[in-house]
Amino acid sequence: MKLDVFLSPAGLAANEVAGRSVFVIDVLRTTTVICAALHHGARGVVPVSSVAEASRLAQTLGPEDVLLIGERNCEPIEGFALGNSPLEMAAPGVRGKTLVMTTSNGTSALLAAHGAEEVFVAAAANLSLAGARAREILATRRELVILCAGRESQFGLDDAYAAGRLAILALGGRRRKGLNDGALAAVDLARRYGTSWERPLSMSAAGRQLTRLGRGADVADAAREDAYPVLPVLRDRRITLETAA
Amino acid sequence: MKLDVFLSPAGLAANEVAGRSVFVIDVLRTTTVICAALHHGARGVVPVSSVAEASRLAQTLGPEDVLLIGERNCEPIEGFALGNSPLEMAAPGVRGKTLVMTTSNGTSALLAAHGAEEVFVAAAANLSLAGARAREILATRRELVILCAGRESQFGLDDAYAAGRLAILALGGRRRKGLNDGALAAVDLARRYGTSWERPLSMSAAGRQLTRLGRGADVADAAREDAYPVLPVLRDRRITLETAA
Repeated sequence: MKLDVFLSPAGLAANEVAGRSVFVIDVLRTTTVICAALHHGARGVVPVSSVAEASRLAQTLGPEDVLLIGERNCEPIEGFALGNSPLEMAAPGVRGKTLVMTTSNGTSALLAAHGAEEVFVAAAANLSLAGARAREILATRRELVILCAGRESQFGLDDAYAAGRLAILALGGRRRKGLNDGALAAVDLARRYGTSWERPLSMSAAGRQLTRLGRGADVADAAREDAYPVLPVLRDRRITLETAA
Repeated sequence: MKLDVFLSPAGLAANEVAGRSVFVIDVLRTTTVICAALHHGARGVVPVSSVAEASRLAQTLGPEDVLLIGERNCEPIEGFALGNSPLEMAAPGVRGKTLVMTTSNGTSALLAAHGAEEVFVAAAANLSLAGARAREILATRRELVILCAGRESQFGLDDAYAAGRLAILALGGRRRKGLNDGALAAVDLARRYGTSWERPLSMSAAGRQLTRLGRGADVADAAREDAYPVLPVLRDRRITLETAA
């Protein structure tokens, strides 16, 4: 059994994800927003690395079916329909649309999982579903990767805590052989903070920055466990609900 | 007050260390070896990034005053006088020599601290001295960086635990405002594992690899707190005892 948690995509070698099952986590806010969008009826989410690429892709796909969403430095992007708040995803315009998304850290982590056998999107918002699937994968394939987006290529407390919560569900109470150093630490952190998301999220640099910018409601929404109970999966550059595959 | 712990040098931006006081940690084994070497009378240690550079530098400095030391994949390097074991540093040939050193992770972390105002070398082997100096710096400069070497650009449990132990000494029991996410997690891990180095070191991937390779004695030596009570400082590419400056 092999359970690897990578606490940031920086320095991740391609062979560490190639052919494996990967859960990507960016609780504040990218993976929470993806869960919210699909829960509210978006057809799919396409993560891209730059604003320019997002605009080009929207033209290619046809602007009438596409919404541009995302942020830079936690703020909405000029000319984009929506920012990167899970609360915005309840807007009626989201249903039926393909969202082209670019964010500072989260979309990079999703793109860093390129080459994986399968890529799932995880957050507090879909913890139970993601945990059940992670447990199933670990039981059958005997290995699993959890990849944290972190923050500016560095460790993020929010994502590390989430990785620990997901790892604990994946392990299902079994002993801790086969965990890499990141997984051992993530599990330790999850145990240290207990089951409430508020504290690790509000203490994290990402949470503090959002609160400073008046976006504390996003932090509170991202802390609602199983608020958006869907399991998004990334296939061929596009994230959809798993059942839609 | 600002205490930053970077859990790996991957993705570290130059402005995150520029002009600051940095403690570099690679408990298994680079920073332990540096403490051991200086404790046993080496004149200095020069960290370099490649085997070729080490050989060139030895020629330049004059082979009679220089020993080449280091490892690749935990194994000694062909043609080098010594490997990367703290136990080897007790050899009589070390006294009075300049050691030119290249290792897989540790020397990279030391070189990543380029541009810092001052760079100290820390390990279990010099925890009390490093902790006292870190506390003094935090009290006067109101900021401090602890940089973990990690392992292959990723998180290493051994170094994160050490960073937490050092951060706790630097903070001296004060409250935890001004800690970045890495510092919060390192302090949490240090509290979780308590004051014995054996467990985090032997559980870490680096410790397990060394033990598998028959180098368990190095892990045990690196776990001896204050075994080599010196405070090495890096200045102008060369690491010496602080009092020698």
